Amino acid sequence: MIIMRSDATPEEVKEVVAKVEANGLKVHISEGSERVIIGAIGDGRPVVRDQFTLLPGVDRVMPISRPYKLASREFQPANTTFKLGPATFGGDQIVIIAGPCSVESRSQLIEVAEAVREAGAHVLRGGAYKPRTSPYAFQGLGQEGLELLAEARAVTGMPVVTEVMAPELVCKVADYADMLQIGARNMQNYALLTAAGEAQVPVLLKRGLSATIEEMLMAAEYILAHGNNRVALCERGIRTYETATRNTTDINAIPVLQELTHLPVLLDPSHSTGQWKYVTPIARAAIAAGADGLIVEVHPRPEEALSDGGQSLKPERFAEMVAQVRAIADALGRR
Amino acid sequence: MIIMRSDATPEEVKEVVAKVEANGLKVHISEGSERVIIGAIGDGRPVVRDQFTLLPGVDRVMPISRPYKLASREFQPANTTFKLGPATFGGDQIVIIAGPCSVESRSQLIEVAEAVREAGAHVLRGGAYKPRTSPYAFQGLGQEGLELLAEARAVTGMPVVTEVMAPELVCKVADYADMLQIGARNMQNYALLTAAGEAQVPVLLKRGLSATIEEMLMAAEYILAHGNNRVALCERGIRTYETATRNTTDINAIPVLQELTHLPVLLDPSHSTGQWKYVTPIARAAIAAGADGLIVEVHPRPEEALSDGGQSLKPERFAEMVAQVRAIADALGRR
Amino acid sequence: MIIMRSDATPEEVKEVVAKVEANGLKVHISEGSERVIIGAIGDGRPVVRDQFTLLPGVDRVMPISRPYKLASREFQPANTTFKLGPATFGGDQIVIIAGPCSVESRSQLIEVAEAVREAGAHVLRGGAYKPRTSPYAFQGLGQEGLELLAEARAVTGMPVVTEVMAPELVCKVADYADMLQIGARNMQNYALLTAAGEAQVPVLLKRGLSATIEEMLMAAEYILAHGNNRVALCERGIRTYETATRNTTDINAIPVLQELTHLPVLLDPSHSTGQWKYVTPIARAAIAAGADGLIVEVHPRPEEALSDGGQSLKPERFAEMVAQVRAIADALGRR
Amino acid sequence: MIIMRSDATPEEVKEVVAKVEANGLKVHISEGSERVIIGAIGDGRPVVRDQFTLLPGVDRVMPISRPYKLASREFQPANTTFKLGPATFGGDQIVIIAGPCSVESRSQLIEVAEAVREAGAHVLRGGAYKPRTSPYAFQGLGQEGLELLAEARAVTGMPVVTEVMAPELVCKVADYADMLQIGARNMQNYALLTAAGEAQVPVLLKRGLSATIEEMLMAAEYILAHGNNRVALCERGIRTYETATRNTTDINAIPVLQELTHLPVLLDPSHSTGQWKYVTPIARAAIAAGADGLIVEVHPRPEEALSDGGQSLKPERFAEMVAQVRAIADALGRR
Repeated sequence: MIIMRSDATPEEVKEVVAKVEANGLKVHISEGSERVIIGAIGDGRPVVRDQFTLLPGVDRVMPISRPYKLASREFQPANTTFKLGPATFGGDQIVIIAGPCSVESRSQLIEVAEAVREAGAHVLRGGAYKPRTSPYAFQGLGQEGLELLAEARAVTGMPVVTEVMAPELVCKVADYADMLQIGARNMQNYALLTAAGEAQVPVLLKRGLSATIEEMLMAAEYILAHGNNRVALCERGIRTYETATRNTTDINAIPVLQELTHLPVLLDPSHSTGQWKYVTPIARAAIAAGADGLIVEVHPRPEEALSDGGQSLKPERFAEMVAQVRAIADALGRR
Repeated sequence: MIIMRSDATPEEVKEVVAKVEANGLKVHISEGSERVIIGAIGDGRPVVRDQFTLLPGVDRVMPISRPYKLASREFQPANTTFKLGPATFGGDQIVIIAGPCSVESRSQLIEVAEAVREAGAHVLRGGAYKPRTSPYAFQGLGQEGLELLAEARAVTGMPVVTEVMAPELVCKVADYADMLQIGARNMQNYALLTAAGEAQVPVLLKRGLSATIEEMLMAAEYILAHGNNRVALCERGIRTYETATRNTTDINAIPVLQELTHLPVLLDPSHSTGQWKYVTPIARAAIAAGADGLIVEVHPRPEEALSDGGQSLKPERFAEMVAQVRAIADALGRR
Repeated sequence: MIIMRSDATPEEVKEVVAKVEANGLKVHISEGSERVIIGAIGDGRPVVRDQFTLLPGVDRVMPISRPYKLASREFQPANTTFKLGPATFGGDQIVIIAGPCSVESRSQLIEVAEAVREAGAHVLRGGAYKPRTSPYAFQGLGQEGLELLAEARAVTGMPVVTEVMAPELVCKVADYADMLQIGARNMQNYALLTAAGEAQVPVLLKRGLSATIEEMLMAAEYILAHGNNRVALCERGIRTYETATRNTTDINAIPVLQELTHLPVLLDPSHSTGQWKYVTPIARAAIAAGADGLIVEVHPRPEEALSDGGQSLKPERFAEMVAQVRAIADALGRR
Repeated sequence: MIIMRSDATPEEVKEVVAKVEANGLKVHISEGSERVIIGAIGDGRPVVRDQFTLLPGVDRVMPISRPYKLASREFQPANTTFKLGPATFGGDQIVIIAGPCSVESRSQLIEVAEAVREAGAHVLRGGAYKPRTSPYAFQGLGQEGLELLAEARAVTGMPVVTEVMAPELVCKVADYADMLQIGARNMQNYALLTAAGEAQVPVLLKRGLSATIEEMLMAAEYILAHGNNRVALCERGIRTYETATRNTTDINAIPVLQELTHLPVLLDPSHSTGQWKYVTPIARAAIAAGADGLIVEVHPRPEEALSDGGQSLKPERFAEMVAQVRAIADALGRR
């Protein structure tokens, strides 16, 4: 949709029309009393928008169609569902992923894993490679962390999700884990998205710190376009001016995403609030808003955690959270 | 807490200490290996902070105590509760306020009022004076709108809440309405807050478009400090970079406010989303997060509404929303 | 511009067309391979947009024309200029407004006024009524402050600008001051904008803390539509996630406003940075970007100021700032 | 600085003190009338903050020292300067980097390179690997683009800067280019920052789309901590609620960064505005605010550009921009 300036000349309109046609697009012209509007109708192939913006007499160019396809509900009306051990993403079930922020030791990991499984979690989370703002902070156990995760899976029977931070590590991480997490800071790391798209493992894609919902769907589109359609999206709070909480939970994103895409939508109340006190109410809110699952940080002794202790629940509080979430799910007819 | 620069001289420290004492504050000095930190401990009277910031050798000044008192949980640990007709704000009950954005006519108002009462609403809302971004848009019926609201109250028995936009109208609006609404654009209109504090009517204070939680509590403090303690707070979405919804519902604000203040906390899912499709899921989320009530826009024929039609529920959808919200409230042991 | 869903039926298209025509608008239909787009072309009278949004089959409604008229460059291509004592707003001259945040005493005000006049300022600023976040902070001298401002004008010959916070005070403040300031917190106080529009005094309209450029122009439109066309706009920083400065100076707003409107555009580097150290570089940047003037806080002893000391320049630093700004103005051929 | 709650017991205070000492930190206690504050003074080694936050009786923990060291002015008071062909970053000289967004062909690149060199640019920019929001958009020429950049350098004698997007490409890109660019989307790609730190090539680090100034300095710290101290920082606009421009130029960041760090600071007016009309005024503002240089997109026929045409200057407009920037630099005594 190309909107001409109110003082555009007929020659300028002609030039724009010629350019539209040169791109293989169909032209529709609306002549108002104030200005001319030119519709450019294509077949879905991408067109460089600025070529029109810059022509003389053009005021603005407004895109009409959405920039993602494979991720859209228009393309696939039915929900995407996929299984991961006892969990089915995208169906009736509320999927609960839980575990420590970082894998710190064998005993810590096994202790948490057994506690969260008992409380009702379906999938175990734990970071082996940690993106840290400071180069001086604990960066994760790396390879050793992956091995401990595999061991925790063997002991507890729970599938495991862990973050991957660089494209060349995708294959290695996929050898140990059942699901790859792409973290908020890497949501637009296109080399990594491409590598994850080529892997044959489910992906948990977290929303970038200040990504729009559309950008998140475009990031998912990268993975889908490279052949992997087992993608779950995760709202984890966005950056706003409010500093009372670490991030602002964008609860609106839950119904908006469910309208726009067929992919499962989870929420991470640990990161979206940044304080353990707020995790349970926001977990309840997420399920009430219609989310398909949760990912929650749990640590047996948060005050000793090497990262994110402040937002980690103790196992007994996590069990309470699960009970409350279950009550909400029941009230809404989910399980 | 006054943090000196690492290169501050002993004379500079002395000067700051003298200034602190001159303000009648007690001094505590911490000398680290890198820098000196000076604590200034007062008795709660306000102190001009910049007088210290600007002294030579000072790096930063950090406030330790919160700037509001009457509104804080520390001041009053128990919830504030107050009654308005069949509704009790701040207790176990989920209070539901509903009605049209604008009062448009007698028949429209009575039709909506009866429909929302039947669906379970406790209080009727409706705008007589409308704050509109454009000077050319419908500005509300004014005085006539107030009279219609009073009539709707007489017919339905529901108490009425309506917005007041200027201090000189507070008395007049309070003559017709049971509760005054201070809208988002006026949250820091201090003349209006002062007038509302002097009125003896409950106040519904909406969060400013980009107000922090602390600023909202400071606005409530104005009303409380002028003698009116029947104040309910209302989260209505904040402005962020995300444009998929009109505003971003700050769901975190619900548990944060309930920790910081004893005042009742409501949520307005109509404004916080801006689209009727998202109102019900966000209403559910609000109650699940612990909100004490909701304020919702309802219109019998939204496509004919003179304002906010896009975010108004039809009466039958509102009834469904109430049923779902009730199921959530039951699951959490509220009513 | 009404964009239908890709699955809209011909009946739905017909219904929308009928509704457009019922509003007295002309219809243009573009039928693409994917969807139908309906143009609704009016004569400039406002139309309620949501009446179309809610019709079945409609995907989105996109406005094409801008919502303000009198404030737009299309309506008036030439710059608005007006005089205020030695200053001409909107012409070649860089107008400099300076003075204390608050009027604190006769001696303080006269001292600052003489210092800033000597350094090259054209207009004196000073707050008599102060909008303060805390009800316990200094609220300004009120009436006495107005009288002191009038006295400072008599002594120094400088015209005076001061803030007005409530509609019922507009006439009184206009009796004492040469220009009314509408502050950031009141940019959408429509009762106040209306009163300022009816007054016959120039108005300095500051951008709201999180107002868009379009909303600022709509606020100006209120004043213009009520008959007052001597309005200057003032960028004063916006609220973002960045906390290193009190606000984020939206320097882009300078060229954007100058493209969209004929009204003069000033910048307030004191509020837009919040720290005196950054005031001079940002004042230089404003003029380099093309601003028509500056409004700057100056205090002889900032560490004793009752408000905003941290962002106030001392008179000698202000004189330096004026010299540097002058050098930039010369380099760009302004004075 | 650990702030206890007003109702903390002496036992809780003792427990916190013991924990502080167990971390090898010195303790300073301030006992106010309302609450106790415990200072924990270390030797600069990182400490996990949440271990204190979570102890009983603790209200908040406030960090006093800044989290970056090598990048700070306290660590190195004098400006970092380094040479790149005819340019010296961080000195008196205003460094101008210019070129096309993407390398599109040999003739396009050589044409732009010669034009910008003639107009006064010192360094050539051009993207071989392009981070694109859409997987369907032009992704850059890759290896061929690098070869063309090397050829353009041979022909024009200008040093070359180009973006690197993945850690495993750092060595390859460093073989062809004189300076590596780390783009906004990768500012917190820690694997990439580490690889760039290990390379012996200057780095141009762009601010993330919603990174704080502190986070940008932490990203620089990663590079410095891995042994590379030739780093220039680049403000390129941040994401805010304002949509009139693609990004909001954070002009305040220029003086703030120059106070906090010794690294050179550039500004990218092409990305920070997103429209060519605003590039020149914002380039002038950047230099007036004190920036050490600019990076600008230039294309001979923007309407044919494969990316970012809308924000690219034509060569003749770029020459005008350089002339205006030079006038400002002269007025401020720089060259």
